[in-house]
Amino acid sequence: MKIAELSRRSGVPVPTIKYYLRENLLRPGELTSPNQASYGEHHLQRLRLVRALIDLGNVPVAKVREVLESLDSPNLDLHDRIGHVNRAITPSRPLSAGDVARSAAREQVSDLVEQRGWIVEPDAPALNALVEAIAAIRSLGQDQLVANLGAYADAVQVFTDLEIAAVTGSSDPDRIAESVIIGTILCESVIAALRLIAQEDASARRLRATV
Amino acid sequence: MKIAELSRRSGVPVPTIKYYLRENLLRPGELTSPNQASYGEHHLQRLRLVRALIDLGNVPVAKVREVLESLDSPNLDLHDRIGHVNRAITPSRPLSAGDVARSAAREQVSDLVEQRGWIVEPDAPALNALVEAIAAIRSLGQDQLVANLGAYADAVQVFTDLEIAAVTGSSDPDRIAESVIIGTILCESVIAALRLIAQEDASARRLRATV
Repeated sequence: MKIAELSRRSGVPVPTIKYYLRENLLRPGELTSPNQASYGEHHLQRLRLVRALIDLGNVPVAKVREVLESLDSPNLDLHDRIGHVNRAITPSRPLSAGDVARSAAREQVSDLVEQRGWIVEPDAPALNALVEAIAAIRSLGQDQLVANLGAYADAVQVFTDLEIAAVTGSSDPDRIAESVIIGTILCESVIAALRLIAQEDASARRLRATV
Repeated sequence: MKIAELSRRSGVPVPTIKYYLRENLLRPGELTSPNQASYGEHHLQRLRLVRALIDLGNVPVAKVREVLESLDSPNLDLHDRIGHVNRAITPSRPLSAGDVARSAAREQVSDLVEQRGWIVEPDAPALNALVEAIAAIRSLGQDQLVANLGAYADAVQVFTDLEIAAVTGSSDPDRIAESVIIGTILCESVIAALRLIAQEDASARRLRATV
């Protein structure tokens, strides 16, 4: 298909597609004349993946390129590819938590990891992101929100098990890697939206009458 | 305390605090001389809340102001205040999903809401965000990731119940509203980080050996 059709089918404007081509987020099409290229279904698929990473995953363009390079790298094992994705989408900003709250949070997280026997690199950015989020909550005097971290971890485990069952149906490592990327980023949006809906329902049931 | 101490205790640079004051995200301190103001513990608390909304919730400054106005509005009932927060933090961008995928997703979401008997406004942005996320996943050929939406909803319900138990311990509606805002936004970061850690563990256990 020509770039105009790729644009129409993906909903991505032509100038944006050209930008992604220049940034190497999308492989060049096959040249059919000096000024025209033809694109296939795999371009459409990749374009949707790029949009999902940028729009839903809030992944910066440079990181999207890294993620795609890991995805396309046949020499990297699947565990490492997944690790690259996880690292690319983990926020790394320290928050304005107090030192006391942060050290309490750090202890809470290391206790949790130890109790669960989680195999996780000590420098995994997600560990730090968890510490920062808990520390921020504690600094705001809302310790009760994270008092039962184990129950959160149990519920999260449900998601992880569902996703693993869904992605390991295929025997093709490339296909599994792509599923994991999509699952990691897009299922987060699914969970976040479900949570807001469940909260609206709970609020309507419990609070509407009480105030 | 002076602005320098507020900065030191919050970890927020003085120019940023001044920006928040100009943008009405933070109430003015009490003037102690024509050029100097004094700030209290409530300023520190509010400053941490603003940072949490901006840094962890990715809420734009204009929306932060709206959220804080709802929080400070004694005439609004708690359900409405929570609704304002939910709307402020729900992403509204349509994604590059195909029409077939989007209409399948819409049906899936309305079935779910009906089965659960969820009380949710038909125009709640979270419903649309859920449709877009599912449509994006389906457009990428990963329908299996969202085949079991009910199981996701069950796990999400665990979070919602935990949070409700945590926030309704207080009888002060202002305090509850603040807890809900913090819980909605910061617990999302907690869940996201826990999910990445659980995935890294699952990946280490299951995939490391298979590739």
